[in-house]
Amino acid sequence: MKKTSFGMVGGGLGSFIGDVHRHGAMIDDLAALRAGCFSRSREKSLETARAWDIPEDRVYGTFQEMADRESARDDGIDFVTVATPNSSHYEIAKYFLEKNIHVMCDKPVTMTVEQAEDLKRIAEERKLLFAVSYAYTGYPVIRQARRMIEDGIIGRMLYVRAGHPEDWVISSVPEEPAGNLPWRFDPNVAGESLCCADLGTHAEQLIEQFTGLTIRRVLAKFNTWPAYLPLETNVTALLDLGDGITGELWASQIAIGKECSPYIYVVGTKGALEWNHEKPDILKYTELNGPTQLLSAGRDYMGAESRSITRVAAGHHEGYFEVFGNIYRPFCENLLALKEGKAYEGLSYPTIREGLNGMKFIHACVESEKRGNIWIDL
Amino acid sequence: MKKTSFGMVGGGLGSFIGDVHRHGAMIDDLAALRAGCFSRSREKSLETARAWDIPEDRVYGTFQEMADRESARDDGIDFVTVATPNSSHYEIAKYFLEKNIHVMCDKPVTMTVEQAEDLKRIAEERKLLFAVSYAYTGYPVIRQARRMIEDGIIGRMLYVRAGHPEDWVISSVPEEPAGNLPWRFDPNVAGESLCCADLGTHAEQLIEQFTGLTIRRVLAKFNTWPAYLPLETNVTALLDLGDGITGELWASQIAIGKECSPYIYVVGTKGALEWNHEKPDILKYTELNGPTQLLSAGRDYMGAESRSITRVAAGHHEGYFEVFGNIYRPFCENLLALKEGKAYEGLSYPTIREGLNGMKFIHACVESEKRGNIWIDL
Amino acid sequence: MKKTSFGMVGGGLGSFIGDVHRHGAMIDDLAALRAGCFSRSREKSLETARAWDIPEDRVYGTFQEMADRESARDDGIDFVTVATPNSSHYEIAKYFLEKNIHVMCDKPVTMTVEQAEDLKRIAEERKLLFAVSYAYTGYPVIRQARRMIEDGIIGRMLYVRAGHPEDWVISSVPEEPAGNLPWRFDPNVAGESLCCADLGTHAEQLIEQFTGLTIRRVLAKFNTWPAYLPLETNVTALLDLGDGITGELWASQIAIGKECSPYIYVVGTKGALEWNHEKPDILKYTELNGPTQLLSAGRDYMGAESRSITRVAAGHHEGYFEVFGNIYRPFCENLLALKEGKAYEGLSYPTIREGLNGMKFIHACVESEKRGNIWIDL
Amino acid sequence: MKKTSFGMVGGGLGSFIGDVHRHGAMIDDLAALRAGCFSRSREKSLETARAWDIPEDRVYGTFQEMADRESARDDGIDFVTVATPNSSHYEIAKYFLEKNIHVMCDKPVTMTVEQAEDLKRIAEERKLLFAVSYAYTGYPVIRQARRMIEDGIIGRMLYVRAGHPEDWVISSVPEEPAGNLPWRFDPNVAGESLCCADLGTHAEQLIEQFTGLTIRRVLAKFNTWPAYLPLETNVTALLDLGDGITGELWASQIAIGKECSPYIYVVGTKGALEWNHEKPDILKYTELNGPTQLLSAGRDYMGAESRSITRVAAGHHEGYFEVFGNIYRPFCENLLALKEGKAYEGLSYPTIREGLNGMKFIHACVESEKRGNIWIDL
Repeated sequence: MKKTSFGMVGGGLGSFIGDVHRHGAMIDDLAALRAGCFSRSREKSLETARAWDIPEDRVYGTFQEMADRESARDDGIDFVTVATPNSSHYEIAKYFLEKNIHVMCDKPVTMTVEQAEDLKRIAEERKLLFAVSYAYTGYPVIRQARRMIEDGIIGRMLYVRAGHPEDWVISSVPEEPAGNLPWRFDPNVAGESLCCADLGTHAEQLIEQFTGLTIRRVLAKFNTWPAYLPLETNVTALLDLGDGITGELWASQIAIGKECSPYIYVVGTKGALEWNHEKPDILKYTELNGPTQLLSAGRDYMGAESRSITRVAAGHHEGYFEVFGNIYRPFCENLLALKEGKAYEGLSYPTIREGLNGMKFIHACVESEKRGNIWIDL
Repeated sequence: MKKTSFGMVGGGLGSFIGDVHRHGAMIDDLAALRAGCFSRSREKSLETARAWDIPEDRVYGTFQEMADRESARDDGIDFVTVATPNSSHYEIAKYFLEKNIHVMCDKPVTMTVEQAEDLKRIAEERKLLFAVSYAYTGYPVIRQARRMIEDGIIGRMLYVRAGHPEDWVISSVPEEPAGNLPWRFDPNVAGESLCCADLGTHAEQLIEQFTGLTIRRVLAKFNTWPAYLPLETNVTALLDLGDGITGELWASQIAIGKECSPYIYVVGTKGALEWNHEKPDILKYTELNGPTQLLSAGRDYMGAESRSITRVAAGHHEGYFEVFGNIYRPFCENLLALKEGKAYEGLSYPTIREGLNGMKFIHACVESEKRGNIWIDL
Repeated sequence: MKKTSFGMVGGGLGSFIGDVHRHGAMIDDLAALRAGCFSRSREKSLETARAWDIPEDRVYGTFQEMADRESARDDGIDFVTVATPNSSHYEIAKYFLEKNIHVMCDKPVTMTVEQAEDLKRIAEERKLLFAVSYAYTGYPVIRQARRMIEDGIIGRMLYVRAGHPEDWVISSVPEEPAGNLPWRFDPNVAGESLCCADLGTHAEQLIEQFTGLTIRRVLAKFNTWPAYLPLETNVTALLDLGDGITGELWASQIAIGKECSPYIYVVGTKGALEWNHEKPDILKYTELNGPTQLLSAGRDYMGAESRSITRVAAGHHEGYFEVFGNIYRPFCENLLALKEGKAYEGLSYPTIREGLNGMKFIHACVESEKRGNIWIDL
Repeated sequence: MKKTSFGMVGGGLGSFIGDVHRHGAMIDDLAALRAGCFSRSREKSLETARAWDIPEDRVYGTFQEMADRESARDDGIDFVTVATPNSSHYEIAKYFLEKNIHVMCDKPVTMTVEQAEDLKRIAEERKLLFAVSYAYTGYPVIRQARRMIEDGIIGRMLYVRAGHPEDWVISSVPEEPAGNLPWRFDPNVAGESLCCADLGTHAEQLIEQFTGLTIRRVLAKFNTWPAYLPLETNVTALLDLGDGITGELWASQIAIGKECSPYIYVVGTKGALEWNHEKPDILKYTELNGPTQLLSAGRDYMGAESRSITRVAAGHHEGYFEVFGNIYRPFCENLLALKEGKAYEGLSYPTIREGLNGMKFIHACVESEKRGNIWIDL
């Protein structure tokens, strides 16, 4: 039983996402956190390192120093987790790639389509792994849905509805301007989109993982509330998924009553599949003219792929930490195979390809809105 | 306690909708069925009349004869219920209006916007009542939602999502052409739209009744399955509801897993309201940053208006027959007030105004689809 | 198409249950209300008669007069509906039976086991029909469950849980005594039990209709709240259903959060069935080691028996009025067959046999509680 | 930021519960696994140790050796986690206590009431901590319920229903005997009860944690299926919770359709609270005559105690690993306080007191069943 080792940029004590990455990485004993530049302040980084049993000599003041020195060590980290605000992903990921260190990066992966294309190119040239932590697609029943669709269970797909509504902006941002806003609201740090980037990409990725389809064109309408915000907080988009399949996508940060409710519904000529994060272990399947069936993660009737990432007995629950684990597991297994020169035949996971698709989706939505809600190619 | 009397065109034995109208009309003892032209065959009409205790001399071979003779009787019917296929609504309703007989008509009310405008004009000129049987909006909690919105409970409205998915076409129509299809699939009888007319108008009316908003513009995308059908079976529409409020509407006849699931979600600056026909007695209300509350029809905390049309104790159920009753009740009360020369101050109900809005909605959706999914004014 | 005619004792204007009986009887055009003694006051009875189009000469001051005169008419009523408080059921039903008039009676059918046995004996001797209006068991999916169980779908039954929780007493009765209480709280009118009689019998009957099993023994524990009430408001009972099958039954009038939530769960060696009145059109079925399936009333996969009492398309709703109709329909069909001297082969319905079982259940629960929660035979 | 160190007896590679303990212990960085006797085979223990980065010199062939040598080390473990079958808990826990090592033990804590009393006595005499891993009560909303009840939100409690149905026995054990059964089915290893011990104690503890009440008397009825099993697989119990509060408890291993569904419903004079493991982040609260409210873990309206153990934003999910963490967290904090000589004022957790209550509950149920379903004091 081998393990990978990794470092983290960002995500120190007090950062929620850092904890999630760390536990997601550790949950299957496939990765050990050995180095870090957890904060802009080395003092805070050291404090984090002490809490997490990381030796002082592998705590770095800058990510460049970390990449330089870790890549020079015999026992240097295999990969880096980038858990910083959006605007710095590109620079950091690129730097590590160029030191031949594999990357696990938060989403959205960059600020622009071009940056994502650049990262993709570098990773491919250097044969480096690049994973993007689209966590919600990590639930086992989403794998099951994909397999059922590929096996033709619902026939030819006709129509897709997916979304990711939350209420965090309307719940926390005052109606009238009052002091500074967090980085996500600042176009210089967050990029050209707020809601598309933060939540729309989760829905876009959910469609891709669940159905295997890729969005070809979008027609998007934005709303912004509170009204003074510089970026949108609600997005409704029509989707062209190719082959005559259309769809609709809703992302919202003002959806009172929806705390974190990604969902998807797909209908084909022979049946339909539906999933909602509110009961994340359940996949609803309806055969044409049959009763709706509630497929439950971990049962023997679920496929091997889905069961392979279910850690608990059916009826028990896995949550946010575990689905991060479900991104880290295949990534680490792929990395171990690579290190041993073996072919990797395990589960897929979101990579820079999916990260790039997300950037194209964001940009096309922004363009569609700017140009009066017309269809824009991705 | 007074009663109105009515006749029915269409809706004879074997017609589901005829039974629903009849029971909806009778449920509050405000209307008695006294005459009819239930079928094109007088024999079948007579059979229906016998089953329903209607004297033979008030059974008619044609609707014209019925209108002529009933309007000539001292005890002639007060109103007619038009329960025939869409294409004949206009001709029939017009004929009765011109004999000064009030009208209750199925939806969609006509084949074209112009016809609906014509009926509206005639009814207004003659001061006749004209109700349209949009049944699903008859649930008591929908009245409650409207009142809460008007009382400012959810603040200024921001965004609306509504729909009416069913699976009846995909469940019953073969993938490949096989013999004749029912009238709904024939553009000559059904009009320029299948799904918009059949189900989209229910969702459109649900938005209007629930929120009080009227759709100003639509941008619609159609799908058609089975592919050989001449009219659409799935509609996705972006909505402009005025004052910066936008929305999305989904109507489908191919939504496997959704048997009859009209729904609506409305978010405002202070809260959100949500309803789904799957639990039609429950209204979900979430105050900004508060827990979601499940408001149940018939409880004392519900408003007087909502309670006035709840016939059973909370937790008991009312269904399709009773919501038809909730259209008939205010219509009959209005009619009784009119007959007595009194002002009517009771509940509102869908009228030819709402019927006309429905026709405009259908036509705008068809136009938007034809012109490549652009915004079309209603 | 023939019809029965009936009269009603009790249930006049202002009585909720009278309206429910009347509409339940009329919904399938199998019964017409032709006579009545709707109230102790003839004046109020006449008012009711006027509202319901019943001729004055068939409105009676006493139930005896009604039975005497209707039984003497050629066109006298076929059956009487008894919709009065519990304490008068016996006397009224007996009087009508002795005039050879069939009976539809509210539950609990009498005050004592002996009275119910007496009515059963009289009805059997005179070959008269005697139905008891256990409404909640009228939902189509309950028929479906019974058929599935009889077909062996869930194997040999092992264990049953059923209940009928409501909150009406705790919601409406003050914690401290304050003036007179309604008749249901008076042992002289209600009998020896409040909650067992009012709601426990519904749960008992639900078990019988759903499973075909009869309760053999009970062991019951009572609670009473508000504490000054003379009769119990919450009942928990262990059940012996014969053949080693055991169960549990809960009836409550103090179950805050449960408005009217009869439910049942039955597990057998090969599967389980579950129903809850909160979604009354849905039957949950789980095959051993399979996914839970949601069977929906009205779909083609439902059995003929269940579909025969479904009046609306799947996904639409039927409620309290319609399930009363589902008691009246087979009762009236049986009556029509009897009048024509034909064998009745239609659906079953709750009769005086089930009414008697209910009385035995109530009495056994009261005895068990009195004697310190021991097993009592029914 | 200090950490505790611990060892584990049992729970090696291949053991599900070992992984759960390990991750539960680590999730808040309050405990590090430093030693173990993970299996009867030292070879397998060493394999586990390698996978988990535990030095070879702290892997032991017997638990006695582990206790002896760890208690002799300066850096010896603070506590031991006992994750072995029921029959060995007593011997192991006692041995470690006598070496002054604190204990975290699986439930049920012993085989007999006397053994649990003995452990309680030893722990108290030596002022050692003794936690019992009743995981399901670790959900944050259960803390919230307890606080609301203590604050009088639902008034005086009247009645409680709780249970823990699963389907694992009926899903996995053949109807007819076929080879050897796992240890849980063997009275010599599992003790005098199967279902009460395995699942009933979870429900019993859920009542205690949720309400603060302790069961005073039980009256229990057992079922056994498959019929040849030596111990019961389904338990229904009436509960006396003191002060006139009664309740009902159901535990089942044959509940097809219920995968792992602990639940509780508590009604008081002013309101009711309800929780079901199927949506573990949600607490249902209904004020008398008010709408049901869905309280969601992590929202600001939840109390500080509940929020202190919520690691994710509202709407995200925590599951089985995290609730183990919620037992480990207060236990470790208590231990750290003890080591520093400080008073512990943090959250409570299940201790040997609760473990002993569980044993009394099991024994009283077994006695009640043996003696014909009569009330037995705990």
